[in-house]
Amino acid sequence: MADAEGPLTTETILDTAEQVLRRFGLSKATVVDVARALDVSHGTVYRYFPSKTALRAAVTQRWLHRVSAPLAEVKNTSGTAPEKLHLWLTTLMQIKRSKVLDDPELFHAYQSLFGESKAVLSEHVSELLDQLTVILEEGIQKGEIRQGDPTGLAEGIFYATSRFHHPINSQEWLSPTIDREFEQVWDLIVTGLKT
Amino acid sequence: MADAEGPLTTETILDTAEQVLRRFGLSKATVVDVARALDVSHGTVYRYFPSKTALRAAVTQRWLHRVSAPLAEVKNTSGTAPEKLHLWLTTLMQIKRSKVLDDPELFHAYQSLFGESKAVLSEHVSELLDQLTVILEEGIQKGEIRQGDPTGLAEGIFYATSRFHHPINSQEWLSPTIDREFEQVWDLIVTGLKT
Repeated sequence: MADAEGPLTTETILDTAEQVLRRFGLSKATVVDVARALDVSHGTVYRYFPSKTALRAAVTQRWLHRVSAPLAEVKNTSGTAPEKLHLWLTTLMQIKRSKVLDDPELFHAYQSLFGESKAVLSEHVSELLDQLTVILEEGIQKGEIRQGDPTGLAEGIFYATSRFHHPINSQEWLSPTIDREFEQVWDLIVTGLKT
Repeated sequence: MADAEGPLTTETILDTAEQVLRRFGLSKATVVDVARALDVSHGTVYRYFPSKTALRAAVTQRWLHRVSAPLAEVKNTSGTAPEKLHLWLTTLMQIKRSKVLDDPELFHAYQSLFGESKAVLSEHVSELLDQLTVILEEGIQKGEIRQGDPTGLAEGIFYATSRFHHPINSQEWLSPTIDREFEQVWDLIVTGLKT
């Protein structure tokens, strides 16, 4: 019951929605099922989230924010732009990998959820591309990165490494050669970025 | 009946196995089911393929050969090494895309089949990497590609473009931005390859 665990908040509802998603799968992640798990009326949950779609989008957004938030800090670290890019990519890979290894059920439940929140997902990709663009712009200004369109370079880097961070490839991340493969891709990228 | 369509050959059996796979899925692609479709005894099919595993590996191998064979010709075209690499990659993407668009059922049936033929699949990847390595070696000799380990560069190129040719990403190939994404990755790669 919500009362037993403190007042009902957006976070409490999202935590419960995540638990329902993990335990019962995507079809059960509805307002009614989440309300039942919280032992409140579904009217109460609807006051926070006007529809199943809104609830699911909010859960997705929170999951994706946990990916993008630590990455936003990378631009503030010391180091050259190529070093920051390498750190950004390895951090992204590490976050995704621990998500799939620590809680595979939840990870795969989220993958099905992403299929229906295209807008939220594409906002997330834009956010990540913006982070890369900022690092690249600074690197170009400092002469650490060759002249070029930073947005185009950011997209190139992001898609050239999608094998290592796009969830659809999660099976490959368990391969013993995955880190070597990444470093070979990185070697190619960084040579292409240098002035 | 096999008799009605000519003598039973390895190719006839593989054609039939492919039809069974397309129409009834992976679980039905057994020697017994293929023999039934051919209207011959399963003993007859066993004379060609000693086990279900052998039959499935042969079907997989043939499918993959249809991918690798046209690519093997690219090294013999005129043009510089970077041009050949671009042609090789766009040919690979085109083959994979027409397979998924022309016959999605068969494409997806093969994807499940690949899961159980890891050895055949890794032989295929080695073959593709060898093709890339040959183009790169020649390019390095001619001074069209920077000095470097051609095998490592080949792996870098192959994995940096996996979004565009690895079957697990087939959903993405329908995106209207996929060609632009590839060209941005290619731009990054080719800049990193130049001397």
